[in-house]
Amino acid sequence: MVYITRIEKFNAAHKLWVDDWTEEQNQEVFGKCSNKNWHGHNYHLHVTIKGTPDPVTGFVMDVKKLSIIIREQVVNHLDHSNLNLDVPFIPKGLQPTTENLIILIWQQLQTALKGYPCQLHGLKLWETDTIYAEYYGE
Amino acid sequence: MVYITRIEKFNAAHKLWVDDWTEEQNQEVFGKCSNKNWHGHNYHLHVTIKGTPDPVTGFVMDVKKLSIIIREQVVNHLDHSNLNLDVPFIPKGLQPTTENLIILIWQQLQTALKGYPCQLHGLKLWETDTIYAEYYGE
Amino acid sequence: MVYITRIEKFNAAHKLWVDDWTEEQNQEVFGKCSNKNWHGHNYHLHVTIKGTPDPVTGFVMDVKKLSIIIREQVVNHLDHSNLNLDVPFIPKGLQPTTENLIILIWQQLQTALKGYPCQLHGLKLWETDTIYAEYYGE
Amino acid sequence: MVYITRIEKFNAAHKLWVDDWTEEQNQEVFGKCSNKNWHGHNYHLHVTIKGTPDPVTGFVMDVKKLSIIIREQVVNHLDHSNLNLDVPFIPKGLQPTTENLIILIWQQLQTALKGYPCQLHGLKLWETDTIYAEYYGE
Amino acid sequence: MVYITRIEKFNAAHKLWVDDWTEEQNQEVFGKCSNKNWHGHNYHLHVTIKGTPDPVTGFVMDVKKLSIIIREQVVNHLDHSNLNLDVPFIPKGLQPTTENLIILIWQQLQTALKGYPCQLHGLKLWETDTIYAEYYGE
Amino acid sequence: MVYITRIEKFNAAHKLWVDDWTEEQNQEVFGKCSNKNWHGHNYHLHVTIKGTPDPVTGFVMDVKKLSIIIREQVVNHLDHSNLNLDVPFIPKGLQPTTENLIILIWQQLQTALKGYPCQLHGLKLWETDTIYAEYYGE
Repeated sequence: MVYITRIEKFNAAHKLWVDDWTEEQNQEVFGKCSNKNWHGHNYHLHVTIKGTPDPVTGFVMDVKKLSIIIREQVVNHLDHSNLNLDVPFIPKGLQPTTENLIILIWQQLQTALKGYPCQLHGLKLWETDTIYAEYYGE
Repeated sequence: MVYITRIEKFNAAHKLWVDDWTEEQNQEVFGKCSNKNWHGHNYHLHVTIKGTPDPVTGFVMDVKKLSIIIREQVVNHLDHSNLNLDVPFIPKGLQPTTENLIILIWQQLQTALKGYPCQLHGLKLWETDTIYAEYYGE
Repeated sequence: MVYITRIEKFNAAHKLWVDDWTEEQNQEVFGKCSNKNWHGHNYHLHVTIKGTPDPVTGFVMDVKKLSIIIREQVVNHLDHSNLNLDVPFIPKGLQPTTENLIILIWQQLQTALKGYPCQLHGLKLWETDTIYAEYYGE
Repeated sequence: MVYITRIEKFNAAHKLWVDDWTEEQNQEVFGKCSNKNWHGHNYHLHVTIKGTPDPVTGFVMDVKKLSIIIREQVVNHLDHSNLNLDVPFIPKGLQPTTENLIILIWQQLQTALKGYPCQLHGLKLWETDTIYAEYYGE
Repeated sequence: MVYITRIEKFNAAHKLWVDDWTEEQNQEVFGKCSNKNWHGHNYHLHVTIKGTPDPVTGFVMDVKKLSIIIREQVVNHLDHSNLNLDVPFIPKGLQPTTENLIILIWQQLQTALKGYPCQLHGLKLWETDTIYAEYYGE
Repeated sequence: MVYITRIEKFNAAHKLWVDDWTEEQNQEVFGKCSNKNWHGHNYHLHVTIKGTPDPVTGFVMDVKKLSIIIREQVVNHLDHSNLNLDVPFIPKGLQPTTENLIILIWQQLQTALKGYPCQLHGLKLWETDTIYAEYYGE
């Protein structure tokens, strides 16, 4: 069992905000992340799949194909987007925290990778260079 | 003459958009950067000053003081902000490109560093990990 | 179960030295790390906690709070310190190797995180850019 | 149980090519990686061992010794080599993909680390700054 | 005058070898870089142009256009290539050192950027993460 | 004129302290850097030389030779040292700030590079990942 990872990147705006709360409550819980006018990040996404290298090609999965799937399923939707407003697979009202975002990205990729002889193993999503989330589907 | 640099970071949203243009024109020139709902970046700012090390302290300038000035004059205004809407020192209607932003940051720091026995030498502003601007005040 | 990581940094001096050994023995085992006059490092600490994102805030744990805890429990004690002499939670005589240090940091954080609805999952401690330790509490 | 990692680097040429296939088939599967005249990479190898820190030295294993072993067993063979032609422990005809390479490096290190009171835990091999493989011996 | 830089990457094989020398002479001067079977690197290229930001777009030059020019003129020729054998703009017999390579890349870009209202200012070419060359056209 | 840079690294302890000042004065000016028991850093040193590539070898200077000179003249003295106590070329009583250190490193290298057909152009010394100094000999 070998694990192979491809890194892709996207830039996006978001804010953390609960509609049922007052501005003060939002400020208290989310601090500067509750700025009504949004802020944004350069996200780096690591997608790790696992499997046995093919005896002829030596590939667990062709990383070029993996890159195309990540871009079609994830990056094309998220890059230069507003995570609260623009992305079909992010439910309206859900906080676009790194934690929630990584679960939704997993679901996108899990579906797209069905039928391949390898498995989605884990994701790592950097929001800044001092914060990242990881998710393994369970 | 020794140059000393301090790096500070901020996250912000922005969009590139000319009001006098149609949506198609904006899309043609700015591409995905013209998304009406904004996108964003993690910016890394290098501030370089130059001078002669003090014979007693060995400092061109105390980097802790430099860090405080950068945060007061620049980062506190820009961090978790919308560069098109929120920042007093960015004129409304000016495109918040990395190029324009670095000139405005220079002006903020130039003023704040007056009176110190060192000079502001240059700035380097990373917008993503593949794009950066540099400015030397002229 | 989502994992979220915060990175904090500190600079410190240390040496590796066994009092019961001669200088030659120390030199033989620890090499340049046994320099009596100390040497030092920029340490980077990754603190990973795990849990379920809160349905309202989207947080496993507010990373700003996590950052405060890490600084209060770990960084404020270690930053600009001598690891052999200055740190209350490092027993005198214990070698301040990356391996021993990471276990002691775990104990500091484990205690401080009690009562939070998330769990400390793992630590990663970079000593240089070619050496790091990891610890998962067992 | 503490994990300690040492990073070593090497540069090498390789190509991905199946002799039984036509040039078109090779191009279709391997793309630019099938260039007959080779291409190359700067590889970064993370070697992680695990064990209990020695009560006197504080070491799971002396990282200087680990570095020597990695260089003798792996880097000296691979650095500035052609992975398809030059390396005794890479079978002729096996595709030198990151996936196959990491398994062979594991075997080299597994053998060399026998007799040490620690265990080889895992390897991580970066081929470019957007692709890496991991292997844990099973 | 603002400077804006775009980073692009390519992977390539090469060797350093003088045909008029014996194998021993080549080994003596070039060491492991003279391996007949080639070795390779992941190159990172910084392309810096300078000019005045356009008053409407805020661009010195659209970085997307700059990226396309770099890929058409440089990366598409060098990526997954053999620098000694495959590249039209590298004269046969010229050593493909980082120093010679950066001068040839400058010539490619200088020609392609004619007619733009900005100037090519400088190049920085990383061969490994401890070696890079810079060139300013004179 | 091509510039070529080699990066070398060292770890060291130091403190900033003026003997003629009280402990309070030292604390006020140098903050945590005045800790009597020292602290330390992982330093990264960039050494840039300039010249014309040799028409046969393609080298401005063989980077392997440059690396040996840097290690002999600088790194072997500084690595795992105490910058206040251990280094022959650092005058006692001089503050081992990054600014003073880079000037002394310049003098070491300037002397050692005499007789080579290239010139020392500049140095860049990273003290932490947010602070660096640069020096060009004047």
